[in-house]
Amino acid sequence: MNQAASSSTHALGAEAVTAMEHVDGERLIAMQRKLASFGLLANGGVAREALTTVELDARRWLCSAFDGPQYRWSIDDAANLFLRRAGTDDDAAPVMTGSHIDTQPVGGWLDGAYGVIAGLEVMRALDDAGIRTRRPLEVAIWTNEEGSRFNPGAMGSSAFATPHRLGAFLDVCDAAGTSFRAARDAARAATPAAQPTHLGRSVHAYIEAHIEQGPVLEDGGQVLGIVTGIQGVRWFEVEVRGCSAHAGTTPLSARKDALMRAAQLVSAIGTLAETQQDPALRLTVGRFDVARGSINTIADQVVFTIDLRHPDDTTLDRLETAIHDLIDANDARCSTEMRSLMRRAPTVFDTRILDVLDAAVVATGEPFRRLGSGAFHDAMFLADICPTAMLFVPSRQGISHHPAEDTAEAELIAGARALAGALTALATR
Amino acid sequence: MNQAASSSTHALGAEAVTAMEHVDGERLIAMQRKLASFGLLANGGVAREALTTVELDARRWLCSAFDGPQYRWSIDDAANLFLRRAGTDDDAAPVMTGSHIDTQPVGGWLDGAYGVIAGLEVMRALDDAGIRTRRPLEVAIWTNEEGSRFNPGAMGSSAFATPHRLGAFLDVCDAAGTSFRAARDAARAATPAAQPTHLGRSVHAYIEAHIEQGPVLEDGGQVLGIVTGIQGVRWFEVEVRGCSAHAGTTPLSARKDALMRAAQLVSAIGTLAETQQDPALRLTVGRFDVARGSINTIADQVVFTIDLRHPDDTTLDRLETAIHDLIDANDARCSTEMRSLMRRAPTVFDTRILDVLDAAVVATGEPFRRLGSGAFHDAMFLADICPTAMLFVPSRQGISHHPAEDTAEAELIAGARALAGALTALATR
Repeated sequence: MNQAASSSTHALGAEAVTAMEHVDGERLIAMQRKLASFGLLANGGVAREALTTVELDARRWLCSAFDGPQYRWSIDDAANLFLRRAGTDDDAAPVMTGSHIDTQPVGGWLDGAYGVIAGLEVMRALDDAGIRTRRPLEVAIWTNEEGSRFNPGAMGSSAFATPHRLGAFLDVCDAAGTSFRAARDAARAATPAAQPTHLGRSVHAYIEAHIEQGPVLEDGGQVLGIVTGIQGVRWFEVEVRGCSAHAGTTPLSARKDALMRAAQLVSAIGTLAETQQDPALRLTVGRFDVARGSINTIADQVVFTIDLRHPDDTTLDRLETAIHDLIDANDARCSTEMRSLMRRAPTVFDTRILDVLDAAVVATGEPFRRLGSGAFHDAMFLADICPTAMLFVPSRQGISHHPAEDTAEAELIAGARALAGALTALATR
Repeated sequence: MNQAASSSTHALGAEAVTAMEHVDGERLIAMQRKLASFGLLANGGVAREALTTVELDARRWLCSAFDGPQYRWSIDDAANLFLRRAGTDDDAAPVMTGSHIDTQPVGGWLDGAYGVIAGLEVMRALDDAGIRTRRPLEVAIWTNEEGSRFNPGAMGSSAFATPHRLGAFLDVCDAAGTSFRAARDAARAATPAAQPTHLGRSVHAYIEAHIEQGPVLEDGGQVLGIVTGIQGVRWFEVEVRGCSAHAGTTPLSARKDALMRAAQLVSAIGTLAETQQDPALRLTVGRFDVARGSINTIADQVVFTIDLRHPDDTTLDRLETAIHDLIDANDARCSTEMRSLMRRAPTVFDTRILDVLDAAVVATGEPFRRLGSGAFHDAMFLADICPTAMLFVPSRQGISHHPAEDTAEAELIAGARALAGALTALATR
């Protein structure tokens, strides 16, 4: 045993190091590709929206692939599906990992599916190593994280963390008119071996592996990222109202041009963001809808959106005020109104879980860094009820939710090894 | 006879002054309101798109209302409908007036319909005054000026001026799949009394009365406007291409944000226009289409349009170059392309017709000014084949193509009087 291994054994415990050694890279990649085959498109993308036939087929395959005596499947009232591996103290709250296998209408082959498959490979590694952890281990497959079929996203994990949310979700319908309730019932019927379980159960700790969906790890040459939190987000809608008029006859001085005013505001908001020179700031105008847009008519109404994110709530407050000041700046021609659509405070992950992840990542020998998450994840809701953290692997060119989404196989394997070390350490203590 | 009347008699001729005196304001307004009843909406707007059932009903009513022995209706291959009042030299090329009775999907009660009704009132005034002009007089009802049912607009007048254009128009279909050819044939069938006539016939002179569709006359307190020309127009489409990415994970410095770049360009183009301080300049961005716009996604493609108008072609050249310079300005993040969609040089109306209009307008005693037209009109195409000018009456608050479109009755009457003087003067020489 060399010194690094000795140090890891000290920090993680001997079983954790053994579990890491038993992660089988080929098996991990084979499982990942098999899961991608459910909904695979010719262009390499994956179309597997929440609780669709193809997603239920994938759930059925997972249930059939893990059916030993040490395993038990369960499903809760939000159709979250759990694979439990028994612990020696099976009444103890489980250590949980997982993510989601639903995709955007066209997504990539990894995204949340990686977090599920990495968790399942940890189960196999423990089997191969002959390790029984004290606490049970569970892999969660959270329902409808993407939110593209049923709005909002992360229905499963948010209802798990805060069960009273479920009531409002059940009547949400997809574009075809199917309710979440009906889709949930179909999911239950698709996995009859899964026993009913409760929303809001106790969880000892939660670690979610996921692709980064950004360029930070790739740009820095790191293979693993320990995620310290999820930035806060505020969504706004800005409505600019002017007056429709003829493009050929109306002098510039007489116009109430909603499109020009909106473009000036968006440009000014972009300048505000750039001048912060804050690498943690994210500000996006993603929609800009012109009512009755026509080439030779002055537009009377534009609605655009603002997606503002930062790890620090004080910075969000300051920027929200600055944007309000720009919007409210006197303009005699058009009226402007800014409405809040959604706001969520920054999530700060648990330092104890981060320390365990640190030790596991060091034990892999791979280059790593700590970073924040720009995207939402199921872990955001689990953090409300138990010590939580996340582990990222790189996204090639930062691309996600796209057929070009990819991560090197060696990086996927390194992530599973780190996850095995951290979960086993948490479950054996 | 006072001095002003004596001066007008000298400039216009005695018959012209007599014709002006016989314009019957009540009859004019009654005809205008009767025409508005075809397609009248509860909100005061009028829905009478080109060659629809309601527009054909209006044509039938006009044919039935003017059926004396001095009158002859004809219709050409573009369904342009003409009412001819015989002259003493009936082989001479006619003096023509008119406009269009089609509206936007929801338009106002005046617009082109005013030019048609004013022309018809001139016919009645000549009847009442017992005047036979040397040249025949014709009122033209041009087909599909608005272009909202069949694209492009001004099909009738442009085919009349340049008959070979008709071939391409006949196969154009409306949103319901009806071809212009079929609609044209239905129009012919609706007015069996109208004799077939030719596109491209000789016209001695053309004067079109129309509402201004802008605020210039109202702001200046003038009742009549002598239109010296129609400004040149150039339409462009600008496509900005960036790269789609996640709003939460992608640092500002790594973005290729097509929406932000497009907003900056529109803002800069607006600033360019404002800094010209040129009251004749019109610059409008009326469309701004974001591909797959989503609140939390960086947009990868935006297409916006530019409508640029000015009476002077050199100014249009200079501004087109300046816009190109803005668009082409180096931006490493997004690629930008500007395409020309349409360009038409300024139309300069005939000084001889303007002089006759001057004399007729002076004879009304109403305040007037010369001005340019910001909108297209059928007169733009007639100017290609005969001496042409236009006469404007004020638009309340500059509004047109809208239920609120309006002009004071006294102003409508003054316009018909000036038109009677000018047409009669031209037809008696």
